[in-house]
Amino acid sequence: MDMKQKGMAAKHASLELAALDGNSKNIILKSIAKALHDNMGSIMESNSIDLRRSEKEGLAAPILKRLKFQQDKIEGVVDGIESLVELEDPVGKTTYSMEIDQGLELFRVTCPIGVVGVIFESRPDALVQISSLCLKSGNSVLLKGGSEASETNRKLFEIIRDASVGCGAPEGWIQLMETRGDVAEMLGMDDEIDLILPRGSNAFVKYIMDNSNIPVLGHSDGICHTYVHSDADMDKSLKVIYDAKTQYVAACNATETILVNQAAAEEFLPEIKKIFDGKVEIFGCGRTREYIDVKSADESNWKTEYLDYKVSVKVVESIEDAIKHINTYGSRHTECILTEDEKAAKRFMALVDAASTYWNCSTRFADGFRYGFGAEVGISTSKIHARGPVGLDGLTIYKYKMLGNGHIVEDYASKKKVFKHKRMEKAFE
Amino acid sequence: MDMKQKGMAAKHASLELAALDGNSKNIILKSIAKALHDNMGSIMESNSIDLRRSEKEGLAAPILKRLKFQQDKIEGVVDGIESLVELEDPVGKTTYSMEIDQGLELFRVTCPIGVVGVIFESRPDALVQISSLCLKSGNSVLLKGGSEASETNRKLFEIIRDASVGCGAPEGWIQLMETRGDVAEMLGMDDEIDLILPRGSNAFVKYIMDNSNIPVLGHSDGICHTYVHSDADMDKSLKVIYDAKTQYVAACNATETILVNQAAAEEFLPEIKKIFDGKVEIFGCGRTREYIDVKSADESNWKTEYLDYKVSVKVVESIEDAIKHINTYGSRHTECILTEDEKAAKRFMALVDAASTYWNCSTRFADGFRYGFGAEVGISTSKIHARGPVGLDGLTIYKYKMLGNGHIVEDYASKKKVFKHKRMEKAFE
Repeated sequence: MDMKQKGMAAKHASLELAALDGNSKNIILKSIAKALHDNMGSIMESNSIDLRRSEKEGLAAPILKRLKFQQDKIEGVVDGIESLVELEDPVGKTTYSMEIDQGLELFRVTCPIGVVGVIFESRPDALVQISSLCLKSGNSVLLKGGSEASETNRKLFEIIRDASVGCGAPEGWIQLMETRGDVAEMLGMDDEIDLILPRGSNAFVKYIMDNSNIPVLGHSDGICHTYVHSDADMDKSLKVIYDAKTQYVAACNATETILVNQAAAEEFLPEIKKIFDGKVEIFGCGRTREYIDVKSADESNWKTEYLDYKVSVKVVESIEDAIKHINTYGSRHTECILTEDEKAAKRFMALVDAASTYWNCSTRFADGFRYGFGAEVGISTSKIHARGPVGLDGLTIYKYKMLGNGHIVEDYASKKKVFKHKRMEKAFE
Repeated sequence: MDMKQKGMAAKHASLELAALDGNSKNIILKSIAKALHDNMGSIMESNSIDLRRSEKEGLAAPILKRLKFQQDKIEGVVDGIESLVELEDPVGKTTYSMEIDQGLELFRVTCPIGVVGVIFESRPDALVQISSLCLKSGNSVLLKGGSEASETNRKLFEIIRDASVGCGAPEGWIQLMETRGDVAEMLGMDDEIDLILPRGSNAFVKYIMDNSNIPVLGHSDGICHTYVHSDADMDKSLKVIYDAKTQYVAACNATETILVNQAAAEEFLPEIKKIFDGKVEIFGCGRTREYIDVKSADESNWKTEYLDYKVSVKVVESIEDAIKHINTYGSRHTECILTEDEKAAKRFMALVDAASTYWNCSTRFADGFRYGFGAEVGISTSKIHARGPVGLDGLTIYKYKMLGNGHIVEDYASKKKVFKHKRMEKAFE
């Protein structure tokens, strides 16, 4: 099949998938989990081919580590599918109901989006997580993984496709894209694809966003800040700052800039330097460098996502100044204030424009699993549809359903009848 | 101010607007209503200038009628604002809350989208409705109305701006665009504008969608269907069909194609012809023309939004056939089934992919006011964020807020602590 055919098959399947009930979807998910478990040997074999080729090609150790998909990781994704089965069906929930008039009832009911195109990095776990989240939410999915993992991905795709279709999933609901050309073609398939979820390097995500009319949900930059307010508690704050910067520096939710209120600067800056000493390189503004001996930072630092053991530090005059800096240079991802002052915290969380705003906890918490969503398809810095970690809810939308008995608009336009517009607490069944 | 400055001013204001409580926004709305009422004379005067010029330019009567904005219509929009005051604040509602662990709480709280760009047709009412909906939902707005209404729009804009800013609204929250060049420039302002709501001709909306990276919510086509199932009740169905086609033919929710189940064709088609006789021109498929003498339809008719006293009629073999036709040619706007069979109705409503799916009522009901939303900024056929009539809810999104007490991710990564993930029924305050 070429891309167009794959897209059309996925679209066709999505209409049937939308009508599957929660129980049927869970039966399919269980059969996928079983098939992955039963075929563990052949998955490991395919993965070994990818690993050997990538080693030969001299791929860096961190990438090889992510690429490795052997027994423990396979058991991990199988466990993941089993916990997904336990989650409530996100489809078919009534979120609004209204009696428009006697015998005329309106319901807003959640439903799948349709067809989702996902481009993900070299971790084969992502293929399993994303396709099972799409199935649970009733969406068809077109998948494109990193080329390093091509053998593993093809094997996983075949197992998931065969197990699901053999168990009631509509043929065509899952499709594999294998080349960059496929991705380029997908970007123009407005008629078949409803949403693109790109994961990967900033430049790549930006490229996707700039080159498609299809809605894109994701994030390019992850420039997260931690702001130390004038009254911040020292021990608590240092613990959070250290975690936010160093717990996993390559993550999009790692803190890249620390803002320090001028009233806290003298006390805090030497301590911050101490905890990072020899591990994290500090780039400070002019006022920072009055207190500690660090490299100099300029505006380009405020715009940089290091994804490394590096951090920018800036002294700000006030909480307003901190908020302004974040709303100017932040990427609307995850932003934290460290303070004992509830009023200041609430103000910060209200005025900072970001998907996640935190009080006294590490920005590293921004993640679908940690948020209790089971898993995530990605993190969104978009301003519409879904923000922050995107789980099952972000893969659904709604449709209105109205039940009448011969009701016509003319009766209301001519004032023969008057709308009741009475909110109901009733689910569509 | 040039467009870039207008956009930046709107963005700056949007951050403050987001923090206004419901009461403050209602006070501003009331002051706008009062100012519009108090300035009725000057509004009517400006409108007269537009009307005189447009008459001289030979504008068509229906456009002149929509352009006219005198006492009754002004009183109408003032009433509209007063009912908007009564509606619940859509901002600050907690829609999800979870205890992540002891002392670590996550909340999902609704918030404004930010800055909305709206392009609307020649009705000056739209300017008032849209800007008051944006204010109530905490969004800054950039407005561009039809050039026929330029004097009226400028006057309304000035009154709304002065009354709102004089009463606590942040300066810059409302901006007027006056030229097509402004609109073209707006399409490239990804950094300042979060969402575009275009209203107007299909070609224009399509142009906007194709020429901006900013998310667009709206609809270009409104190809709505009414499907007559095999067991449809004759009297009820004819009443609905007549209303759906003729109640207001220029509306996007008017029915353009009637699908008739073959088992109902012999009985229904002559009656359909009778009710439309001399008023609505019928274009029928081959099988339709075996029963009634009408013009011939081909595939181009299934793709046509007439917005006129014209209708396509097609005989379908089954409900599946009807669903397939709609999912192929429909514009995902509003679709109706006429039947006494509940199971058939539910199946149709589940499988048809549209913002609104109806059972035994006119497609003309698809409208924010009729749905009980107070008003609407438009109708969306998008698959993400908001579908169907878009009211206050569609102008909001959410942010996550997390409250901790020095919580760090490393404690969970190292298994020193385990997540609780316990759903709460608690609002963020």
